[in-house]
Amino acid sequence: MKVCLIGSTGHTGYVLKGLRGQTDADLIGIAPGSQGEETESLLKLAGDYGYTPIQYQHYTQMLDDLQPDIAAVACHFNDHAAVAIEALNRGIHVFVEKPIATTLEDLDLVRAAYDKSNVHLAAMLGIRYEDWFLTVQNLLEERSIGEIRLMNAQKSYKLGKRSALYTKRETYGGTIPWVGSHAIDWMHALSGEKFYSVYAAHSTKANNGHGDLESTALCHFTFSHEVFGSATIDYLRPRQASSHDDDRIRIVGTTGVLEAQAGKVLLINDAQPGIREMPLLPKREIFTDFLQQVRGEGPCKVTAEQSFLVTEACLKARISADEGRIVYFEA
Amino acid sequence: MKVCLIGSTGHTGYVLKGLRGQTDADLIGIAPGSQGEETESLLKLAGDYGYTPIQYQHYTQMLDDLQPDIAAVACHFNDHAAVAIEALNRGIHVFVEKPIATTLEDLDLVRAAYDKSNVHLAAMLGIRYEDWFLTVQNLLEERSIGEIRLMNAQKSYKLGKRSALYTKRETYGGTIPWVGSHAIDWMHALSGEKFYSVYAAHSTKANNGHGDLESTALCHFTFSHEVFGSATIDYLRPRQASSHDDDRIRIVGTTGVLEAQAGKVLLINDAQPGIREMPLLPKREIFTDFLQQVRGEGPCKVTAEQSFLVTEACLKARISADEGRIVYFEA
Repeated sequence: MKVCLIGSTGHTGYVLKGLRGQTDADLIGIAPGSQGEETESLLKLAGDYGYTPIQYQHYTQMLDDLQPDIAAVACHFNDHAAVAIEALNRGIHVFVEKPIATTLEDLDLVRAAYDKSNVHLAAMLGIRYEDWFLTVQNLLEERSIGEIRLMNAQKSYKLGKRSALYTKRETYGGTIPWVGSHAIDWMHALSGEKFYSVYAAHSTKANNGHGDLESTALCHFTFSHEVFGSATIDYLRPRQASSHDDDRIRIVGTTGVLEAQAGKVLLINDAQPGIREMPLLPKREIFTDFLQQVRGEGPCKVTAEQSFLVTEACLKARISADEGRIVYFEA
Repeated sequence: MKVCLIGSTGHTGYVLKGLRGQTDADLIGIAPGSQGEETESLLKLAGDYGYTPIQYQHYTQMLDDLQPDIAAVACHFNDHAAVAIEALNRGIHVFVEKPIATTLEDLDLVRAAYDKSNVHLAAMLGIRYEDWFLTVQNLLEERSIGEIRLMNAQKSYKLGKRSALYTKRETYGGTIPWVGSHAIDWMHALSGEKFYSVYAAHSTKANNGHGDLESTALCHFTFSHEVFGSATIDYLRPRQASSHDDDRIRIVGTTGVLEAQAGKVLLINDAQPGIREMPLLPKREIFTDFLQQVRGEGPCKVTAEQSFLVTEACLKARISADEGRIVYFEA
């Protein structure tokens, strides 16, 4: 399987790590996906991993020349859609940074290109393969807390000093799509419930000179079966904190409460007294799972439909926050 | 100071505990505040504390006969308002279970009676006097996390088997007012920000035969200065959990994050690396503080205005959840 990387902005590391040990797959080309994107450092990093991709200046040229099986797309966020469409129209499998698009119009175009294709598409929702996430998912499948009734998800990041890309809504797309997408994806993937509506708010206050970047956001999702989910999102994690992010989820079920925080998974249910810290399943690699589906060895945990739906949910939450109104999903 | 207790349903313990050691105050009367409320066990408990109140069948008779300085009101939730008004109209200070009223109309009537009076009124927002809450408040006053930008509050209770009062909206008032009021009060009191709008949802699913009682609720508040606050509320805490409740608050500021969970207060800011567990200030008694204001020795931490506003916020959140719309506060 021939793999090309388009862009050097997003989680390209998923591809470099996911390819390791995959003897039937190789990274053969790298090109920028957006104007002004440099690929020198990515090329060097790929070399450190032992890959020898050809460097292109134009990704369409690369796709035409190299005819890869898979395109991994991780350029400026507002260009994800156009690049993904170019690949889909050539019948190339697409592993694309989330959000897939920064507008609903662009998302519709990607969806239409995907529907006409016969390939796999998955968004880079890589946290789904972390040890704690896999453990939570497994415990839910084992019915350790019964039926899910309420979820509280958290994304908290250090802001640091970010590039100009992040400071303009047009290129960045917003904090709910960029950071919040994970939290929204977790709730959707773990519960299996359908999105019904979203109400959200966000603010650029205290963003330390980062222009349009929202430093705080809060989303309120209503899912099918009257299941509710909050996503609290911020860039205000202190510099002195021990990790970049503080990812959490709390899931309240009919017979127990399951939580992940600081990489630990905690369970309270009626089977045993007190809080139990659960043993973690091993971490996996998202791109390795993607390759498996392309090989026909079974479905990737991140489906194309989920990738589209989570992007739609993020964009509808952003619209809700921008316009101060409840936004509904199609039944 | 002569104190009468009206009702035996809510947090009467605040009065019994808060009176201890107050040599200038005594509990002199007890009466039911609602039809069918029994006061025998409360009378016995008062005796255990060393008080010898007179038992009345009708609280208006008690107020007229004993002419107390203070009436503590803790009857069926939908009767709080009418009883409080009777006391206010007699110029008696009122310490009343939250929510003060179960409808906005009743709340307006209490507010009008209060405005005409010259007494103190405070809702039983007793968690404000817990060691962890006082510690959080103190750390905020010391500017340990800068300006508040985002808050996530949690109330999670064991459901158990509750009386008929809880199973009817008319008498119970709803889970957002009864349980959520604390979480809503914390965010309002700690931030000092004004309520701007609320969006909320609640569900009676999985309430184990408790009729109208909502077992889950989620509220999304927007405060002044684009500060956002979530309140997640549930009755699904497992029986096997080590405590009845799982109260939490997380406060994200411009220079740090402050949290309270399981009675511990945790601070991360840029002054020192890592998470610090902060020493706790001593717990206090809400009714002792109430007595102080009545004596003229300084303001009670729970103001009348806060008591009204938090009740209003709860009822507007409940309206939002019932009707699926955003509800705004007056500027």
